[in-house]
Amino acid sequence: MAQINSHYLKLKAGYLFPEITRRVNAFCAANPEADVIRLGIGDVTEPLPAVCINAMKQAVDEMGVRETFRGYMDDSQGLATLREKIVEYDFKSRGCEIDPADVFVSDGSKCDTGNILDVLAGGDANTIAVADPVYPVYVDTNVMAGNTGDASEQNEYDGLIYLRANEENGFCPPVPTEKIDVIYLCSPNNPTGTVATKEYLKSWVDFAQEHRSLILFDAAYEAFITESHLPHSIYEIDGAKEVAIEYRSFSKNAGFTGTRCAYCVVPSELMGQDSAGNNVSIRDLWTRRHNTKFNGVSYIIQRGAEAVYSTTGQQQVRDLVSFYLENAQRISQGLQQVGVKVYGAVNSPYVWLKTPASQTSWEFFDYLLDQVHLVGTPGSGFGASGEGFFRLSAFNSRENIEAAVQRLQKLVS
Amino acid sequence: MAQINSHYLKLKAGYLFPEITRRVNAFCAANPEADVIRLGIGDVTEPLPAVCINAMKQAVDEMGVRETFRGYMDDSQGLATLREKIVEYDFKSRGCEIDPADVFVSDGSKCDTGNILDVLAGGDANTIAVADPVYPVYVDTNVMAGNTGDASEQNEYDGLIYLRANEENGFCPPVPTEKIDVIYLCSPNNPTGTVATKEYLKSWVDFAQEHRSLILFDAAYEAFITESHLPHSIYEIDGAKEVAIEYRSFSKNAGFTGTRCAYCVVPSELMGQDSAGNNVSIRDLWTRRHNTKFNGVSYIIQRGAEAVYSTTGQQQVRDLVSFYLENAQRISQGLQQVGVKVYGAVNSPYVWLKTPASQTSWEFFDYLLDQVHLVGTPGSGFGASGEGFFRLSAFNSRENIEAAVQRLQKLVS
Repeated sequence: MAQINSHYLKLKAGYLFPEITRRVNAFCAANPEADVIRLGIGDVTEPLPAVCINAMKQAVDEMGVRETFRGYMDDSQGLATLREKIVEYDFKSRGCEIDPADVFVSDGSKCDTGNILDVLAGGDANTIAVADPVYPVYVDTNVMAGNTGDASEQNEYDGLIYLRANEENGFCPPVPTEKIDVIYLCSPNNPTGTVATKEYLKSWVDFAQEHRSLILFDAAYEAFITESHLPHSIYEIDGAKEVAIEYRSFSKNAGFTGTRCAYCVVPSELMGQDSAGNNVSIRDLWTRRHNTKFNGVSYIIQRGAEAVYSTTGQQQVRDLVSFYLENAQRISQGLQQVGVKVYGAVNSPYVWLKTPASQTSWEFFDYLLDQVHLVGTPGSGFGASGEGFFRLSAFNSRENIEAAVQRLQKLVS
Repeated sequence: MAQINSHYLKLKAGYLFPEITRRVNAFCAANPEADVIRLGIGDVTEPLPAVCINAMKQAVDEMGVRETFRGYMDDSQGLATLREKIVEYDFKSRGCEIDPADVFVSDGSKCDTGNILDVLAGGDANTIAVADPVYPVYVDTNVMAGNTGDASEQNEYDGLIYLRANEENGFCPPVPTEKIDVIYLCSPNNPTGTVATKEYLKSWVDFAQEHRSLILFDAAYEAFITESHLPHSIYEIDGAKEVAIEYRSFSKNAGFTGTRCAYCVVPSELMGQDSAGNNVSIRDLWTRRHNTKFNGVSYIIQRGAEAVYSTTGQQQVRDLVSFYLENAQRISQGLQQVGVKVYGAVNSPYVWLKTPASQTSWEFFDYLLDQVHLVGTPGSGFGASGEGFFRLSAFNSRENIEAAVQRLQKLVS
């Protein structure tokens, strides 16, 4: 009989977002008249930039004519034109020299951050660290790959190292004293909205250089950085190409959550170690995985992503991001006016607030839904250190954001 | 230091298609004037059906308007409307009752057949069988997952069971006498072009019922079946829902190789066994994988796939498939006229020929390229039993096919 991967059975049934959906659906069924505003899941609401629409329609037309029709991509890593623009606009503009051959276009950062585990040794071969609170996919994919033991009552998995991010350390946990082989960093951070400074990133690159660790740097929210002293890429730190993979996405800057395009950079300088102790290029392994288990992103969608890098496209993306950032500011200021302590929002579409009256995260979730029909995300859903915090997303219409702020103020004051 | 998955190092460097590309590029560089016709890789050449073009343009337009914009899919398994049409047109029409909840839309069968290994136990927990010759991805993904030992000189991996498909058994290897936990079957077969009969499939379903094995049934070329007595789905066999996953694709029927959409059926009846010996639903594990490591196929692309199931779409797909089948017939008949023994072509876009004058597959490849500037695929690239055979693809323009037939006839006679 076919034997299943029993590691899956260690996963906690109540994944965060399905549990939120369950509670919201139950509330809506019991209160069909309630005007619920959803600031929970980080999904965009505004239409795609016009440049992307135009580029994709043109690409669709090309697919309907024999002479311009595209079959299998010559290169499943992504269109050369797209990868060249990525390198120029996202990296060269920040002083980082990235080789287009090290850029891999994919259908999502969630897929990429999960799939990288395929090319790493499983079980207890690597010591793996995540922040707490953390984007749950980093943890769950490690559980599925058999890199952890069972979960504790606090939903923490044996064998994973949790780096506590809290108010005391500005949600930037310091590098540990122990050796770590693989570290997940996310900046701007989901859920806390914090951005790593150059000094902070340098401390991790230095740590990784010393221990020859691998940093998985998730920069899916990079477009939301507004403060000029903050780094947009880990490659702004000297030596990072030898220790870090960077993940980027078109989901949150250009609104591609339902259109699907992302990319990662796996520098040729990056080495892992095989079981015999030899250095092995992680990019070469990733290339092999990419070619064997993936056929590239749809030509139509890649052309849409490429349009983001036109002059008009860059302006349209800036407008879109500014719109959500203004939403985030309004939530943040509205909450501060009634004495709520808030983080994030300045360089992030997320507001990370301290629950009023010492409520637990889920108590505040239920209270908010029940009293003023607002949906957010309980901080404890992202990890034990998220307890007592709550995430509000700025991805919504201005009208809904203004209504949400009024409701929040009414509730708290 | 980060430890890599050393199983990747067992993979043979010279993957079939890159090796072909290397030889063709070398030939073209040395003979820039040569008019090379490529019948190697199984990539379509004709434009997408007009219904798909129209549907995708409409979907792109929806993405540009706030009211109709789509973010994250409500269901990463695929649009409900698409899954309902799949169930009705691809299965109910053949007498198979499939639940839309068991259909998972993805970006490719290559991804699906590789990713299924995530939910199965690795190492030597399962006895795994493939046909020989075989689509290389089945083998390589098992190597990468650590389910095999090293490769022999014949490129066969220790720990995998190879079922020999040859002229004597009509390229349909009989069920083995030993127990097997996981079996890959492909019909219409790539590369041999053979289609499994109902009796043959029944022998496998019975075997799988007896041993509680899992059949991975790849029906990516289903649209090419022309003979009415042949089954289109493994679910036409009683009891198959308890033992089989079926893979389908829009790549070869609607020409989606560069557009990217496929699906698989994972029936709720299908069980695997956990390490404690309990039955576990494979669909539930696959759902968890799908939700954690994937975000669904682009809304735009799914709408294109859905259009295939309109009345006009069905006709346009039939026209497209008929065009390629007529190509296959011309190659097949042209070769038979000069005494070459051929298989496939009737229910498949592939012609599987016996190399003339007892040449090896690669000798014939080089001879064909050098003498008449034709590119095909050496049968030995698909496995040891493919030695002495050669695959020609019918995916090309009529003009190129006619020229190719003339060149082949000239060469052989």
